[in-house]
Amino acid sequence: MLKKVNLDAKLKKSELKKLLDEKLGYELGKAQRAARDAGMPVIMVFEGWRNSRRSEILGKMMQFMDARGFHVYTSSRITEEERKLPFFTPFWKRLPAPGHMAIYRHSWYYLKNDMEVKNEEKSVNTTFDHINAFEKQLTDGHYCLLKFFVHVSEKQQEKNKKNIIKETGKAWKPIHEIYSEEDQYDKFYKRYNEMLKATDTEYAPWNLISGDDVDVAEYEVFNAIVDGINKAVKAFTTYKEAQRLSTNVSDSKRKYDVLSKVDLSKNIAKDEYKAKLAEYQKRLRELQVEAFNKGISTILAFEGWDAGGKGGAIKRVTEALDPLDFSVHPYSAPNQVERMFHYLWRFWINVPEPGQFALFDRTWYGRVMVERIEKITPDVDWRRGYDEINEMEKEWTEANIVVLKFWLQIDKDEQARRFKERENNPEKLWKITDEDWRNRAKWGEYEDAVNEMIGRTNTDYAPWIIVEANSKYYARLKVLKSIIDALEKKLKDK
Amino acid sequence: MLKKVNLDAKLKKSELKKLLDEKLGYELGKAQRAARDAGMPVIMVFEGWRNSRRSEILGKMMQFMDARGFHVYTSSRITEEERKLPFFTPFWKRLPAPGHMAIYRHSWYYLKNDMEVKNEEKSVNTTFDHINAFEKQLTDGHYCLLKFFVHVSEKQQEKNKKNIIKETGKAWKPIHEIYSEEDQYDKFYKRYNEMLKATDTEYAPWNLISGDDVDVAEYEVFNAIVDGINKAVKAFTTYKEAQRLSTNVSDSKRKYDVLSKVDLSKNIAKDEYKAKLAEYQKRLRELQVEAFNKGISTILAFEGWDAGGKGGAIKRVTEALDPLDFSVHPYSAPNQVERMFHYLWRFWINVPEPGQFALFDRTWYGRVMVERIEKITPDVDWRRGYDEINEMEKEWTEANIVVLKFWLQIDKDEQARRFKERENNPEKLWKITDEDWRNRAKWGEYEDAVNEMIGRTNTDYAPWIIVEANSKYYARLKVLKSIIDALEKKLKDK
Repeated sequence: MLKKVNLDAKLKKSELKKLLDEKLGYELGKAQRAARDAGMPVIMVFEGWRNSRRSEILGKMMQFMDARGFHVYTSSRITEEERKLPFFTPFWKRLPAPGHMAIYRHSWYYLKNDMEVKNEEKSVNTTFDHINAFEKQLTDGHYCLLKFFVHVSEKQQEKNKKNIIKETGKAWKPIHEIYSEEDQYDKFYKRYNEMLKATDTEYAPWNLISGDDVDVAEYEVFNAIVDGINKAVKAFTTYKEAQRLSTNVSDSKRKYDVLSKVDLSKNIAKDEYKAKLAEYQKRLRELQVEAFNKGISTILAFEGWDAGGKGGAIKRVTEALDPLDFSVHPYSAPNQVERMFHYLWRFWINVPEPGQFALFDRTWYGRVMVERIEKITPDVDWRRGYDEINEMEKEWTEANIVVLKFWLQIDKDEQARRFKERENNPEKLWKITDEDWRNRAKWGEYEDAVNEMIGRTNTDYAPWIIVEANSKYYARLKVLKSIIDALEKKLKDK
Repeated sequence: MLKKVNLDAKLKKSELKKLLDEKLGYELGKAQRAARDAGMPVIMVFEGWRNSRRSEILGKMMQFMDARGFHVYTSSRITEEERKLPFFTPFWKRLPAPGHMAIYRHSWYYLKNDMEVKNEEKSVNTTFDHINAFEKQLTDGHYCLLKFFVHVSEKQQEKNKKNIIKETGKAWKPIHEIYSEEDQYDKFYKRYNEMLKATDTEYAPWNLISGDDVDVAEYEVFNAIVDGINKAVKAFTTYKEAQRLSTNVSDSKRKYDVLSKVDLSKNIAKDEYKAKLAEYQKRLRELQVEAFNKGISTILAFEGWDAGGKGGAIKRVTEALDPLDFSVHPYSAPNQVERMFHYLWRFWINVPEPGQFALFDRTWYGRVMVERIEKITPDVDWRRGYDEINEMEKEWTEANIVVLKFWLQIDKDEQARRFKERENNPEKLWKITDEDWRNRAKWGEYEDAVNEMIGRTNTDYAPWIIVEANSKYYARLKVLKSIIDALEKKLKDK
């Protein structure tokens, strides 16, 4: 792809300067305001050769934009702690809010290169497929994503380097020393070409910039941004309007059925429960220490019918754990701030650090349950959720995280019994709300949604565990035992 | 103070166990729910001797509480990056939301000890006075703060240590090795005594716990929590009710006057402006590189009348800076999430990393301006703001941050002229809202508030710079020159 870039591109200097300072600069500010007014979040990626004067191009851009509306990041500033988390975590955490811009001078591609060159740091590993999936999630999530690659010839690169050293002297920052392209132009040329080819997708195409003449580069970048944002705003506005008017037509084709086959008669006596509980909790604590020492973290996702016993099961797990090494994250409808971001953002920010447990009380699966049934999200969007969720869980497991998902299954009679018990017990009354009764009325719809959800997202790397939960004792032990089994397996494999 | 602790405290074992498991445990859960229902945030600090079995006490506590409602922290897990920020930053960032609990096993006292022992790491430095000020801000901000110190005898400490090693073997975590009290019981006894004495305040008293018998310790801790939370809920509810009904009676005694003395005729010719602007921006960029290399960060706070030219001044500053090394943080009324926390929280989370610039477009001074005038905050609360803000800015400057605060002063005629200009220019129309006109109607009230604000918060470590801003050119240059002067001074001192 780099061959196609016209490095001899020249425009009449005086004309170009005038265009930039007067017309295009103004258009840039206007495009930023259009994105802000539409509430469209923008992500820009500036990759390119070292010494391709990207900072200069960025600096020029900034002059025409409102600094309150953007933030410039570089992945070389990602903290040591963040590098221990799944690869995309820092980028998910830094998603721009509606109407804002995140500008990356070095992005997820930088780490990619870094890795390929050094070829040692497993922790910063990702693949072009993961990058493409990530970018698809962003554009599907209606983020405007603009990618630039500034190409320079070997000769020009050398020239720029000399100038930069002359201008800034030794005062300049050590960041430039992180990795080196010196004397490896051909090698990098090949690598960049591969990268550009593999990640030039329909939804996130590269803008290749002629970088030998910095004025031309600025001209091309400005033009592409103005054009890109204006087009995206139009599409974004159309989408928002369509969303407002959307009618949800369910067209589930394949029929899934898991729940009807669950044997809810499974039970266990109190004495045996007490003995096993103590045994399992002790074992879990031992495994926690071992997992901590090996930097293995665990994500436990709890879903199930209202009054299915999620709280009680979570409690038996956390009782066994060191309070310093776990967090429980309860989720309900997203709040004002959470609604500003991609629907997966509020889960990514709680990915556990190495060695930690994170328990999610209700999860990202709300996308394909409540959001589907209550028609909160258009069909086309929640349907995409199955793939998006599988992709996310895959990234987690590849980052040395054990991911288990529990569905606590009870039948309708048992739920009625528990609801009534709660209503009659002043100490438990707070646990039951009108919403619980409303959800119950949609039992059938939920059953369909759950069946499809489990069918489509039960992967070997992040399996669903269906817990027969009419008996609370049985359910709690099954949850504990499943965690123990998964950890023992993981620790043995490791 | 440690002398007063009864280390021989004994209760009848069987009675104690029953009390804990049945009555007190239940009361604990109930207290947690009461705090949740009242929306009261709770912070608990568990300090004590090493090997005082605090983890065991905490673990027992957890069994009776809803894990979705608390998070356990330890300051030894504070990241390297966070340790470079002002001392209290991580604790501000981790404030619990309404109805939630943050439990610290090792808190801001741990670092204090750590420092005193090692006596080397300047970066984790704080003082008892700062701790007291921080805790006062928390309790004044209606956080329920409970502090525990578990005291054990030297003999018991040794015994516990042996048991812990026996039980957990070598599998246990290296965290225990961070600092050592071994063979220094007397030295630590003295230090803990000093610490407890210096920080045992009326608003945040210590609960001293008899730790030689762990059952007794649990009993004392549970009792103190139940009692502490229940009392605090009562006070919190009363406060919330009073806040709802509050009438604001302004009783400003001392008369401040700064604004009337400002010479708004100051001006500069366009040619001279252009020349100076280029010169100052070049110099600022040089200083930025120097400050970056020395790890000195800069906080620039911008306040001023609507249409006073804040945006234009900020732009001339950011134009000069490397886009990777600054952030602009605009503030307006707090959003749903921001409202959940202490009013200073949303500013603490944007404290710049070493070497960075953070520009605040409107600031924490909203507390004593708009919140005062619009009666958003009761008198007693915003009045405390002056001290709270001074304390915060002091901590920042002590952490190697340059703090400058700009007030952009224009007169009422100039504002009217600018408002009209904006209304007549379709490209600037978005800058003007009804709120601007409403604020203008309260010019006199704002004048009083600003005068008092500057009078009370113009400190030598974080000075106010009054910018004569009827001339935009003059104003921008003064802002730039003030930053240059402050940085040059700081870099020379360093």
